[in-house]
Amino acid sequence: MSKGTLYIVSAPSGAGKTSLVAKLLEVRSDLALSVSHTTRPPRPGEQDGVHYHFTDAETFLAMIEDGAFLEHARVFDNYYGTSRAAVQAQLDAGKDVILEIDWQGAQQVRRLMPGCQSIFIVPPSPETLEARLRGRGQDSDEVIERRLGEAVKEIEHHVEYDYLVVNDDFDTALGELQSIFQANRLRLRPQLERHRRLLENLLASGGRKA
Amino acid sequence: MSKGTLYIVSAPSGAGKTSLVAKLLEVRSDLALSVSHTTRPPRPGEQDGVHYHFTDAETFLAMIEDGAFLEHARVFDNYYGTSRAAVQAQLDAGKDVILEIDWQGAQQVRRLMPGCQSIFIVPPSPETLEARLRGRGQDSDEVIERRLGEAVKEIEHHVEYDYLVVNDDFDTALGELQSIFQANRLRLRPQLERHRRLLENLLASGGRKA
Repeated sequence: MSKGTLYIVSAPSGAGKTSLVAKLLEVRSDLALSVSHTTRPPRPGEQDGVHYHFTDAETFLAMIEDGAFLEHARVFDNYYGTSRAAVQAQLDAGKDVILEIDWQGAQQVRRLMPGCQSIFIVPPSPETLEARLRGRGQDSDEVIERRLGEAVKEIEHHVEYDYLVVNDDFDTALGELQSIFQANRLRLRPQLERHRRLLENLLASGGRKA
Repeated sequence: MSKGTLYIVSAPSGAGKTSLVAKLLEVRSDLALSVSHTTRPPRPGEQDGVHYHFTDAETFLAMIEDGAFLEHARVFDNYYGTSRAAVQAQLDAGKDVILEIDWQGAQQVRRLMPGCQSIFIVPPSPETLEARLRGRGQDSDEVIERRLGEAVKEIEHHVEYDYLVVNDDFDTALGELQSIFQANRLRLRPQLERHRRLLENLLASGGRKA
């Protein structure tokens, strides 16, 4: 049995997901991000096995054939995917693993890993969403409109998730995400593994001389 | 549908449950303790409807007949019980409700309220358990041994619970309990009720002029 839990975190662009996940990984050593496979070339500074597992299209397609991916997608000319073996190794090492993927990837992963937990993050208002999508104001209205349409399409799938977090105040949202990870660690099954010795000793204490 | 969640909290004597629950109720205004019915007479300072619903045996037995209790038990010559209507009223008001009951009461409540969440608290070692049961050292070894035996019988039922919390450090255990309440409040269903308007607005924002 896996010792860790697999978490899917999805959100529309502009919800603040990436900053929240980055901070979570910084503060919780028992959490890890899954490392994806991709066929796109490394950018300067990107390390194989850290930022991505870089691979060629032939290998990637063979892995799809073998059912090696929990989820995969083609974005323009490149493939991206989450290898089942990579995630499982992290879970077996007792880490909780976060997958930052969209609703389509989430649907694929839920089918293959029914024990996973999924979290959807939304911005606190349409105004905030739009402001975040506008960013530094360098993009045309047309581009912003397209991004907004994509964000709304993603948000339509919020009902498929186990948890919903509203990212109004960053620290509040961070605390809420932490409570989800912590509460799941307190569930009976992982706690039994963690405290087996203690429970055996407590149960044996009735037989001792008081 | 209930807006709040019903929590069962059980523990052997000596686990520190009562102090933890008292502190939780102090720090979380969205939590309430269920008020039990009892046939025992009020002690000085106890208020009807606050500490207990005080009632006579005839009324209590009639309520049992009517299936009015989520759980009830006879302790020596007195009856104690949790009325379903009283708990439901608190849940409908949006409170999370804590029932401090033993494993037998927990089994009864789980059957009648399958949506409840149950938490078992254990002490961090047999030595701590025994020390806490000894208390101020005014009791005979025989009394301590009986208490220890009862504590072990309670602990045997820990596997029936959803969550397990080890009360080693008080503040850590308190934080863990809080994370359980908070995480459950972030589950999809209560969040949909809480943020319906926001979600409608976000979903409508794709149609607006960006």
